Amino acid sequence: MSDNIVYIGKKPVMAYVMAVITAFRDNPKQVVIRARGRSISIAVDVAEVTKNNYLSNITDTVTIGTEILESDGGTRNVSTIQITLNKSHEA
Amino acid sequence: MSDNIVYIGKKPVMAYVMAVITAFRDNPKQVVIRARGRSISIAVDVAEVTKNNYLSNITDTVTIGTEILESDGGTRNVSTIQITLNKSHEA
Repeated sequence: MSDNIVYIGKKPVMAYVMAVITAFRDNPKQVVIRARGRSISIAVDVAEVTKNNYLSNITDTVTIGTEILESDGGTRNVSTIQITLNKSHEA
Repeated sequence: MSDNIVYIGKKPVMAYVMAVITAFRDNPKQVVIRARGRSISIAVDVAEVTKNNYLSNITDTVTIGTEILESDGGTRNVSTIQITLNKSHEA
């Protein structure tokens, strides 16, 4: 049983769409997409492409937040997004 | 009474934070942040900076979607985000 969290980085959108589809194979009910900073817009693309083109009966719940990162002896804030994809029972 | 929707483009985050604060002055209960494409991550920054640093008692509701844009005789999909900021009654 693989992890049901897909972390978004700098790869092309389709790489993460494939990761989400694979994660749903092991976790049929729920997969979570997480990103921070400039990768947030990629995370939304991944969720939308997955829902619109590859999987049916998916609903999403989106939450945003802020993480504090240590950098160069100081700290800086970075925005985060978590998109939870839930697959509802198919009719 | 000004519009309560702030559209995010390519300006610095603080320009939109100021726009959100101004919009709350005319619309004390609710202001909506909208963005699409690569501006989505800026929209999350704007919501987070506004909540964490400038306004209290704000809750957010986030929805994502896809818009179809006409371009060069064809169409292409672009992801969208809508962040609704609600100001709850102050104690």
